[in-house]
Amino acid sequence: MGEIYFDNSSTTKVCRESAEKVAEMLTENYGNPSSLHTLGFRAERAMEAAREKVAAVLSARTDEVFFTSGGTESNNMALFGAAESGAKRGRHIVSTMVEHPSVLKVMKRLEQKGFSVTYIRPDANGEISAEQVSSAVRPDTVLVSMMLVNNEVGSIMPAAAAAAAIKAKKAPALLHVDAVQAFGKLPFSPAKLGADLMSVSSHKIHGPKGSGALYIKKGVHIAPLTYGGGQEKDVRPGTESTPLIAGFGAAAGALPDIREEYAAMAELNGYCREKLLGIGGITINSPGDALPYILNFSMEGVRAETMLHFLSQKEIYVSSGSACSKGRKSHVLTAMGLDGRRIDSSLRLSFSRFNTKGEVDVFTDTLKEGLSHISHM
Amino acid sequence: MGEIYFDNSSTTKVCRESAEKVAEMLTENYGNPSSLHTLGFRAERAMEAAREKVAAVLSARTDEVFFTSGGTESNNMALFGAAESGAKRGRHIVSTMVEHPSVLKVMKRLEQKGFSVTYIRPDANGEISAEQVSSAVRPDTVLVSMMLVNNEVGSIMPAAAAAAAIKAKKAPALLHVDAVQAFGKLPFSPAKLGADLMSVSSHKIHGPKGSGALYIKKGVHIAPLTYGGGQEKDVRPGTESTPLIAGFGAAAGALPDIREEYAAMAELNGYCREKLLGIGGITINSPGDALPYILNFSMEGVRAETMLHFLSQKEIYVSSGSACSKGRKSHVLTAMGLDGRRIDSSLRLSFSRFNTKGEVDVFTDTLKEGLSHISHM
Repeated sequence: MGEIYFDNSSTTKVCRESAEKVAEMLTENYGNPSSLHTLGFRAERAMEAAREKVAAVLSARTDEVFFTSGGTESNNMALFGAAESGAKRGRHIVSTMVEHPSVLKVMKRLEQKGFSVTYIRPDANGEISAEQVSSAVRPDTVLVSMMLVNNEVGSIMPAAAAAAAIKAKKAPALLHVDAVQAFGKLPFSPAKLGADLMSVSSHKIHGPKGSGALYIKKGVHIAPLTYGGGQEKDVRPGTESTPLIAGFGAAAGALPDIREEYAAMAELNGYCREKLLGIGGITINSPGDALPYILNFSMEGVRAETMLHFLSQKEIYVSSGSACSKGRKSHVLTAMGLDGRRIDSSLRLSFSRFNTKGEVDVFTDTLKEGLSHISHM
Repeated sequence: MGEIYFDNSSTTKVCRESAEKVAEMLTENYGNPSSLHTLGFRAERAMEAAREKVAAVLSARTDEVFFTSGGTESNNMALFGAAESGAKRGRHIVSTMVEHPSVLKVMKRLEQKGFSVTYIRPDANGEISAEQVSSAVRPDTVLVSMMLVNNEVGSIMPAAAAAAAIKAKKAPALLHVDAVQAFGKLPFSPAKLGADLMSVSSHKIHGPKGSGALYIKKGVHIAPLTYGGGQEKDVRPGTESTPLIAGFGAAAGALPDIREEYAAMAELNGYCREKLLGIGGITINSPGDALPYILNFSMEGVRAETMLHFLSQKEIYVSSGSACSKGRKSHVLTAMGLDGRRIDSSLRLSFSRFNTKGEVDVFTDTLKEGLSHISHM
């Protein structure tokens, strides 16, 4: 058995369709989409075809999709842009304690700039209720930012409730949804959720790293973060990375039916949970109704990093916390109120459509082997 | 004869070495460099190898090179960051009238934020003198931003004089150099020029679009533009685009000897100039000592766009103004004081090491054919 990659929420292997498209854009269709000659038009067409594919997954209009360099840039653009545009109407923001650092650190910066941020705390399952959202939104709230799926435990967040709360409170708020972990995995659309802004990323769906998009609802205007040559209607200037954009589009186009794949993942996740619970001393940290692509668990008395390296030596790749926290104590599990030992022993498995039950078998066998070898904390 | 691509200052075809490296990173070495397992370390090593290659071209330290999504982002990071960090010490900035839009539009934004910007005007050759720079810098100047090579006419700017002026005036200014058109083409280093910040881009040197770097001199600190998961030492967060970074590194590593290539380009440029001047009604807009990779000229009485499309039909690709200005009247030629008819009839040729004298022959023959067919303005 070759390598087993259960770290797909960190990043994914690029699928064949996407890799081929990138290669074509590098050496054949290599023009600058802003150029007025045939090579420019050809590159622009490839870029617009990609925009159609990404828009289709979001059930959005193509003119609502703006390509960026990834989820972090999309989040920064959305939050700084919405806060600056909204500052005239109010200085209150609502978010959660379990957002990605590219949201939480922007919030800290906005606090320094005079905004007041309410961070909603999740329950012990990593979940947040519609009531919590509703009571956090105020008439002077100008921005609500909430992820759709938590990257560490997979809990699904009540983004639609946030839209309803904004309406009920008659708040002048824009709703930003960080959908990086949900895109292509959960059936949703920004329009149905009531989102004004939505961040998505290519490299979580078997597209290349370095590409993403910000959905901006038609009619919504936010202040730009960067300035330049007018690309992406001045919302995100800079020569477009046509290879990555076309590769992102190809990855979006290659996504299987989202509902069917969800069912397959639920099956795989359930199989893995059952096998894990058959091993003594394992506690599942993901809620029962989490996105099945993500499964977080703790191993009583075993350091996550030690197990991670043991597994890595066997070519099995998993994560302790998220890749972005790089070994620091998970702020998500901390916010959930888990004790320090359970946090330090937590691993995250994140599946993709290329994983199999056979891989789960090898993984759980190797985990058991590790548990018997590794000295406990 | 196949297509003739004389638009290399807009963007380039990715070289074999770079395209192969990108492909490898997409499907084999696909880990997230922040991941703690073997796949993460392997991706990180490839990224650091690329950083060494880019640093080598700049004669810089590897810890002075920060990867970005391209020249526009590098320019925005440098200018907003330096202005914010410098605001305590002064609010005067020096730049030129012929910078790229990603500098000029940031300057407009900084003016809105209370900074005062002196824009140096070039002479009729697109050149700026050391004296002009020296008299523009003041004791309260906190930032000087100057391109090293102008993207439209190829004039070489006195960046070293800017460093000297800052010193002479005892100004608390950082010097930012937009070296996007100079990188890999002109022998220079930020240390020798006295630059604190320098922007470079991958896709002008046969690397992929969507990658670039910001050089930040050791010890210089600028406020970040975006916030996130700590990548690139918090200077530029977000999952690194390892395929593009490694591709950028490969393109930098594949650069031929810069001085030898400069001589070859000077030969090609001189050959082309001579042939152009042999055709009636052609005026060269690039100065005689311009970077030989760029050759800008005007055709008496002929609209540039008309000729551009005529050439494009013959698979010869050139530019009218820069790709980033997308058909708008060139702000560079306007600043040089050229009359409107000369501006509207200007074309930019931009060469690469893959171009040949044979291509110049075909180009000039086709241009002559076009001049005899196209009705004059």
